[in-house]
Amino acid sequence: MNRGDLTPDRDRQSEEHELQETRFSPELDRVKSNKNVRREYQREEEDREEVEESVEGIFESREVPSWKKQLTIRAFVVSFALSILFSFIVMKLNLTTGIIPSLNVSAGLLGFFFVKTWTKMLHKSGLLKQPFTRQENTVIQTCVVASSGIAFSGGFGTYLFAMSQRIADQSGDAFRGVKDPSLGWIIAFLFVVSFLGLFSVVPLRKIMIIDFKLPYPSGTATAHLINSFHTPQGAKLAKKQVRVLGKFFSFSFFWGFFQWFFTAGENCGFNSFPTFGLRAYQYKFYFDFSATYVGVGMICPYIINISLLLGGILSWGLMWPLIETRKGDWFPSSADSSSMSGLQAYKVFIAVAMILGDGLYNFCKVLTRTLSGLVSQIRGKAGSRTSLEREEEEDPPASPLTPKISYDDQRRTRFFLKDQIPSWFAVGGYVVISAVSTAILPHMFSQLRWYYILVIYVFAPILAFCNAYGAGLTDWSLASTYGKLAIFTIGAWAGSDHGGLLAGLAACGVMMNIVSTASDLTQDFKTGYLTLSSPRAMFVSQVIGTAIGCVVSPCVFWLFYKAFDDLGLPNSEYPAPFATVYRSMAKLGVEGVSSLPRDCLVLCYAFFGVAIIINVVKDGLGNRWGRFVPLPMAMAIPFFLGPYFAIDMCVGSFILFVWERLDAPKAEAFATAVASGLICGDGIWTLPSSVLAIAGVKPPICMKFLSSATNHRVDKFLNGSS
Amino acid sequence: MNRGDLTPDRDRQSEEHELQETRFSPELDRVKSNKNVRREYQREEEDREEVEESVEGIFESREVPSWKKQLTIRAFVVSFALSILFSFIVMKLNLTTGIIPSLNVSAGLLGFFFVKTWTKMLHKSGLLKQPFTRQENTVIQTCVVASSGIAFSGGFGTYLFAMSQRIADQSGDAFRGVKDPSLGWIIAFLFVVSFLGLFSVVPLRKIMIIDFKLPYPSGTATAHLINSFHTPQGAKLAKKQVRVLGKFFSFSFFWGFFQWFFTAGENCGFNSFPTFGLRAYQYKFYFDFSATYVGVGMICPYIINISLLLGGILSWGLMWPLIETRKGDWFPSSADSSSMSGLQAYKVFIAVAMILGDGLYNFCKVLTRTLSGLVSQIRGKAGSRTSLEREEEEDPPASPLTPKISYDDQRRTRFFLKDQIPSWFAVGGYVVISAVSTAILPHMFSQLRWYYILVIYVFAPILAFCNAYGAGLTDWSLASTYGKLAIFTIGAWAGSDHGGLLAGLAACGVMMNIVSTASDLTQDFKTGYLTLSSPRAMFVSQVIGTAIGCVVSPCVFWLFYKAFDDLGLPNSEYPAPFATVYRSMAKLGVEGVSSLPRDCLVLCYAFFGVAIIINVVKDGLGNRWGRFVPLPMAMAIPFFLGPYFAIDMCVGSFILFVWERLDAPKAEAFATAVASGLICGDGIWTLPSSVLAIAGVKPPICMKFLSSATNHRVDKFLNGSS
Repeated sequence: MNRGDLTPDRDRQSEEHELQETRFSPELDRVKSNKNVRREYQREEEDREEVEESVEGIFESREVPSWKKQLTIRAFVVSFALSILFSFIVMKLNLTTGIIPSLNVSAGLLGFFFVKTWTKMLHKSGLLKQPFTRQENTVIQTCVVASSGIAFSGGFGTYLFAMSQRIADQSGDAFRGVKDPSLGWIIAFLFVVSFLGLFSVVPLRKIMIIDFKLPYPSGTATAHLINSFHTPQGAKLAKKQVRVLGKFFSFSFFWGFFQWFFTAGENCGFNSFPTFGLRAYQYKFYFDFSATYVGVGMICPYIINISLLLGGILSWGLMWPLIETRKGDWFPSSADSSSMSGLQAYKVFIAVAMILGDGLYNFCKVLTRTLSGLVSQIRGKAGSRTSLEREEEEDPPASPLTPKISYDDQRRTRFFLKDQIPSWFAVGGYVVISAVSTAILPHMFSQLRWYYILVIYVFAPILAFCNAYGAGLTDWSLASTYGKLAIFTIGAWAGSDHGGLLAGLAACGVMMNIVSTASDLTQDFKTGYLTLSSPRAMFVSQVIGTAIGCVVSPCVFWLFYKAFDDLGLPNSEYPAPFATVYRSMAKLGVEGVSSLPRDCLVLCYAFFGVAIIINVVKDGLGNRWGRFVPLPMAMAIPFFLGPYFAIDMCVGSFILFVWERLDAPKAEAFATAVASGLICGDGIWTLPSSVLAIAGVKPPICMKFLSSATNHRVDKFLNGSS
Repeated sequence: MNRGDLTPDRDRQSEEHELQETRFSPELDRVKSNKNVRREYQREEEDREEVEESVEGIFESREVPSWKKQLTIRAFVVSFALSILFSFIVMKLNLTTGIIPSLNVSAGLLGFFFVKTWTKMLHKSGLLKQPFTRQENTVIQTCVVASSGIAFSGGFGTYLFAMSQRIADQSGDAFRGVKDPSLGWIIAFLFVVSFLGLFSVVPLRKIMIIDFKLPYPSGTATAHLINSFHTPQGAKLAKKQVRVLGKFFSFSFFWGFFQWFFTAGENCGFNSFPTFGLRAYQYKFYFDFSATYVGVGMICPYIINISLLLGGILSWGLMWPLIETRKGDWFPSSADSSSMSGLQAYKVFIAVAMILGDGLYNFCKVLTRTLSGLVSQIRGKAGSRTSLEREEEEDPPASPLTPKISYDDQRRTRFFLKDQIPSWFAVGGYVVISAVSTAILPHMFSQLRWYYILVIYVFAPILAFCNAYGAGLTDWSLASTYGKLAIFTIGAWAGSDHGGLLAGLAACGVMMNIVSTASDLTQDFKTGYLTLSSPRAMFVSQVIGTAIGCVVSPCVFWLFYKAFDDLGLPNSEYPAPFATVYRSMAKLGVEGVSSLPRDCLVLCYAFFGVAIIINVVKDGLGNRWGRFVPLPMAMAIPFFLGPYFAIDMCVGSFILFVWERLDAPKAEAFATAVASGLICGDGIWTLPSSVLAIAGVKPPICMKFLSSATNHRVDKFLNGSS
């Protein structure tokens, strides 16, 4: 599951991939790539591999159910429940910082746990008709990932919310076009754009999985995880992990509940705790006791957390205080702190510049590698060693160009090719849906002309293929980068006068949904390939998952939107930072750089350059030193938000670091379970908390932090008036 | 080290002793008695005992230094440093709740750690002249216990502070006599009264240790601990324990430091955290994040913590809210909440009644057993089985009446009798000091006539012997009970008109100091006996320790007194609850019960009776069920203070309970080290915190807890005025 704007997944994978490029050690690669998923089953895996080379050998005795039998009702019931859980979590992350860690492991673990409990109960009562298979587990995994993927690609924290009045007011450009969210059109919009990606890559699955043998690290790791769950040894570890997850889930949930009591009023409660003093708090340096981000920090690689902290120190510790001293010179001193004509503009646009610089560099990099990989694939083995070939070395017996094919691959290939999805079905589906979509979308967004949509739909399959191929190679989905491309091109094409801003944002949504689901599905095909799940079952599961996501995600968003009045405002609990960033990008695309305050553009150019240079240096240094170079994309996020969540995440990193030093095997086996527990518990607490907010139940206590002087005044006031 | 008013030590020991009475299993007794000290070395002990019956056999090859060589300068330097540390801790405990856990283990551990580090360094530099022996360790232990004993028996939280203006104002009886603390007279007072106890028991040491073979559980356990430290295996465990202690020491210290930042103003900071809501906070039900009391809870037996909590729920959860509804009927509605004519009177006097009831019962019980033990000792083995004989069965070969004497006992007896302290020296010392004291004390307290003092000094040696004998038998020092006896008798003798209140309190001090140091020294003799330390060295060490205590304790108290303006006020950080209790007792002794509000006396009688009944029931049920019956003395403390510290202590209990379930051996080995670390770290933080307070450095932030409505008003006020 790879998504756009700094899902750490992406960065980790890119990190790991660079590692692959410089060190030709398949073992190391297996250890390091997709650490968060892989560390789970690593030990079992290694143990097993020593005695048994073939995974499918272990599973040989077990019957593989037909594709229809893989799609059980219980699987979709569990998927639906987990979809709601993960939608909440992803939505919360979308609206707080926009950093979304990979939740595959949690989905896998929890899916396994639920169905296992279910089947155990049925087994005891003698009603069990069908045992729980790894294919069924894969179906659940796929469905949950597809539906919670919509919570990300639906743009509730980005393009879609960027259209709203609330974000427009902050940017001061409501006159350029506003479309407030409403449950109806969001669901409709998601339904007409989310299924296209699925159809666009279906015909190409054999080329990518069997012929090109692309690695798809995330998909592969998930498959290994699921395979390991269904060996007796793996099931035991999984059970322990589920128990740990459950424990931290409860802790995190009750911690969220406990915190709630102290949040009557603004700046109350633990998430306003001035851990490092009041002055540091003003510049957003504090630990906000968020279990979610401590958990996220435990999942993200150290370099991401360090980059975030560095970015926070650079911006809120250094640059913003300095720029603030130019008040009245660089920008009007009357400007409100959250107004786009004041300091806020520097925060947003410098962050945008850095994100774009990083995006551009990586876009070029991935595109180059995609093209060179394709060229060498077509030309055969002739010519110099390309990166793709190096990939292939990871799994040498399976290379299509070598005659030796392992038992595992034979069996997997046989099952993968057994259930075909006819090409006419895929192409027909794509054409029909795009026609419907082209007809409907202009009615939703009057600014989005039908010919814009047609152009997108003509180019989309190519971009979807590129993204699926790139993700297969590097595990790096560029969905949000393609989305930004759409913002700028369609926005500029429509022009400022014809509502280019809204057209750009809507086009971004169309593009992102196609491209993102395409790479997700191909990952799932890889997972299915490795677990002998039928591609047809994968496809159906993805379709159902997407449909669930198209309904559940908007509802969850709607709950947040109605429950928290200050959703999207800076300094609130849910600032939805990327909504402002996306609107600012759209504005930039439509009308250029004229509206920026003084010297802001210069700083933007500088940081755009710096982002590219850092990337060049990082890649130039190679893995040995390059892995110590921070990631510009990660550095940019706290520019806008402040470093508080980076501190949470560093606390998570620190806990993991200490744990790894004290008891490495245990840390490896359980760190992700602990992190998932922390994230899920806090995430699911947002459900009752938003219900309470909607029901108008106010927390009873305010934990307030006052300076000594203010406290004195308040005490006097309270004594006087009581 | 046994002290009065609910040092948990006392209760534990009594608990354990009852266990001895009903179950004749020396092993079980060894496991259970003095759990807090013994669990430390238990495992080593058991391991060792299996292979080696004789402790002294292990130490045979090591030379026992002469008594002068046991008294090294380094020992007293370390003792002095530890005395300051423990004086701070004991003072903090005195002034917050009056519950003082046994700190022997910490003293032993830290003494071992310091001297060991010291000798190691010297050894490396080649300057080490004398190795670190267990005798030296015993000397340190004795000295530290003696000096920190003064911090308790000096009455800074009880009789001495009860004389102050601040406490008198609260009781509304300042006209009955006030003597404000001042460094000069406190030190002088302590010097003239603290040494008498030492001289009074010196002549009797052979009878109690060698002839009567009294068990002295605390002293024995401490000796075992010290012995175990000086075996190679024990030293390794001790080192690990010190490391754990150090870790929790730092944590607790920095936690105290962190908390400080948020305490600008009243009701600010973590110790006003309304964990269970604001209404529960009003009735003092909250967790105040005090590392000290969590640590104390880990050391105290479960039943004490449960008793405290029960008492808290009974009083603050039930009785006070009910009595409050009688406002205007039972007591004037104009009475301030802290005034002695209002609710406060119920709180104090019901607690006093319960403490007195419990004290009376146990005084009778211990006295009966002391007398019956003495009688049977003198009569020889004739007659029925007395409790004392049962005691002796614990160590059958050593009984003076059986001919078989073990190697250990032979060797120990030889060393114990080698260095004599002449009786003329002891008697002469007692007479001289009591003469000086009789001359000086009336000049300090004009109300305390010289003949009162003379009477006390005539009876004191008998009471001191009783207390030393009782403590030897039951490990239960009745020092504070004898003190209360003095309050009532001398107070009544002097009468209300002649300053009986002050005379009673001063007499209490004189009595408590004698009786308490007497039992301490005898305990130390037992420890010395078991570690082959010379009685002469023990005596000198105790004298030096007492002298250190007489200077250090008043200085530490003075620091607290000057640093915290609200010291002694209810609801403050240091309410010094027993100061009010002692003053109230003295008042009761002088003028009877006439001044109490309506129905208070009835309730007092009821609770006095209840305390006795609970004790009778507890003893009647035997150990099996009796150990589940709460302790009235423990129940009484939160009557006055509120249950917040009981909640802290229950949290400590809970942590220990879970730890014991998860990893019993580790919990047994390290729980006391963790608890000591928590107590010491927080205790030593009070040093810088009081220095900061004296220097006028105010904490920068107030963490305030406001109800939703008040918060709204405050926000409006702050927005309006800023």
